[in-house]
Amino acid sequence: MKSAKQLVSTRVASMSGYVPGEQPCGREFVKLNTNENPYPPSPTVVAAMTGAAAEGLRLYPSPTSDPLREKAAERYGVSPDQVLVGNGSDDILAICLRACVTEGDVVAYGVPTYSLYRTLAESVGARVVEIPAARGEIPEGLAHTGARVFFLCTPNSPTGAPLPLGDVARFARSVDALCVVDEAYADFGDSTALTILSEHPNMLVARTFSKSFSLAGARLGLGFACEELISELLKVKDSYNVSRMAVAAGVAALDDYGWMETHVARVRGTRERVAAAVRKAGYDVEPSATNFFWMDCAGEGGRAVYDRLREGGVLVRYFDSDGLRGGVRVTVGTDDEMDRFLEVLLAS
Amino acid sequence: MKSAKQLVSTRVASMSGYVPGEQPCGREFVKLNTNENPYPPSPTVVAAMTGAAAEGLRLYPSPTSDPLREKAAERYGVSPDQVLVGNGSDDILAICLRACVTEGDVVAYGVPTYSLYRTLAESVGARVVEIPAARGEIPEGLAHTGARVFFLCTPNSPTGAPLPLGDVARFARSVDALCVVDEAYADFGDSTALTILSEHPNMLVARTFSKSFSLAGARLGLGFACEELISELLKVKDSYNVSRMAVAAGVAALDDYGWMETHVARVRGTRERVAAAVRKAGYDVEPSATNFFWMDCAGEGGRAVYDRLREGGVLVRYFDSDGLRGGVRVTVGTDDEMDRFLEVLLAS
Repeated sequence: MKSAKQLVSTRVASMSGYVPGEQPCGREFVKLNTNENPYPPSPTVVAAMTGAAAEGLRLYPSPTSDPLREKAAERYGVSPDQVLVGNGSDDILAICLRACVTEGDVVAYGVPTYSLYRTLAESVGARVVEIPAARGEIPEGLAHTGARVFFLCTPNSPTGAPLPLGDVARFARSVDALCVVDEAYADFGDSTALTILSEHPNMLVARTFSKSFSLAGARLGLGFACEELISELLKVKDSYNVSRMAVAAGVAALDDYGWMETHVARVRGTRERVAAAVRKAGYDVEPSATNFFWMDCAGEGGRAVYDRLREGGVLVRYFDSDGLRGGVRVTVGTDDEMDRFLEVLLAS
Repeated sequence: MKSAKQLVSTRVASMSGYVPGEQPCGREFVKLNTNENPYPPSPTVVAAMTGAAAEGLRLYPSPTSDPLREKAAERYGVSPDQVLVGNGSDDILAICLRACVTEGDVVAYGVPTYSLYRTLAESVGARVVEIPAARGEIPEGLAHTGARVFFLCTPNSPTGAPLPLGDVARFARSVDALCVVDEAYADFGDSTALTILSEHPNMLVARTFSKSFSLAGARLGLGFACEELISELLKVKDSYNVSRMAVAAGVAALDDYGWMETHVARVRGTRERVAAAVRKAGYDVEPSATNFFWMDCAGEGGRAVYDRLREGGVLVRYFDSDGLRGGVRVTVGTDDEMDRFLEVLLAS
């Protein structure tokens, strides 16, 4: 009888799964480690979800989440058929890979970036090509990797740097493969590839409700692309991939767009204030277009700063991987939370 | 520049996606086409979801849905590490394929059965082997297909027939590959492979909250297997695949298990009453261990009966595929709904 490792494919047996940021239990932490929004979602979103829970749960949801497709089309100025609704934007990324990648095909992106790309690519049997990228740049060789799918994370995690839109456009035109522009953090910055989508039939823009809309717990994301591409992607999504509550939440969140903008503005204000204070304390903090910032911990090293903050009840993200051990990623919390962060950081 | 069909893999370009049962808009139908439960979920489930929506939505859920793993372990007499929580049981099935199948591997099952198996298998590049099966039987040649993954749907859709547990056990012992026992409808019948799971390390039992627990709109399913297998499967699930509301719903649903049992008993009662009436009217209805029954429409044909019922405001499921054109699948609704069904059926 085969063991579990033999029942699964060799590539899965040898994979290590994705390690999400720590979700602490027990002790109360100031939680600045997984880029969640410190402010709650709009009360109308909560009301919409409550309504969806009270009514119709026994029935399947719309397979393509039509009410949300329509609302998103209206909000973002595209047609409903250009919208793919996902169980989080991770689902959108996974669907792109499932649709385009055949075993052994290349998936390529600059690093450092969102580490889930590797896990998702490996799980469809792709050959992963990672090319070191300078901050805010698409690396030189990326276009020549022969990839079937490229990931461009802008603004990027964990650096916080956006890619210039002109570079994204030029890159998309230079390759004959799918360019997934992952804009999970775009609402915290100043530009979006949605403005250039119509000129690039090989581009998909992925968005999430987890960050700017404060809905990480609801699992909801959107993908935007030309209609022909969306119709191919729909073939490989799970048949009912998004719940009735999530669809209701998304519609209500886009209807109360001002709530999101208000809280994003608040996060941006806090980000600039805290980044300045951290710089003043002698740490290098690059500009960020997201709800987090990357803090270079020079002499001390990322691990030591992570440990020291944790000791003081503040959880940030340390990545034990090449090129990232020198710093930590700090999510922007409320002003009070960030004051506590500064207090612990500067206590030494 | 490549077209969308060229951006995706050849196998996806040539796939036709899964066609879910019609979700009617506009006109009010008696909806007996997608095996939904006619009764609502427990009020404590709705309260739990409302609570989850009002609190903590800005935070990510537990990546492995731990509160529900623990509750399911307690309810079904396994360890939490033997439980995989999915975004519907479709997610569980997809995870099994993603973990075990390498392009070109065989996935095999008896037909007729749940048509999503083909879509899911094709989307991971599997070679699908379908073997005609007699009602309630595992077809002779199935074990010799060399498959990496077998699907055994019991009770089966659209026939409603369970597989004898002894046959399932013998089959699992005779093959060196993963046997996915899809028990979406098991609560409406009298047996479950959970009782033989511990003796079969190559078996995964899939369950859903969509049918017996009246939660199709919430997207929630469970997989049960040995700990080693679950730990491999976890590697290829989406990192946060289940929302906070769905986890809360699942915990509450298992806590109010009696609610489910009461409504399942009601559905079973209605099923027997209506099946008898349909038989009396001259149609062949085989016994069912599910919340639907297969109705043979002999001379008239499935399409004609489907059309006639639809005309009368009653929606059942007609499958335009080999071996299934002779009948329709009828979901068991409330007594009132089924009286309307009988009225329209017998009006001719």
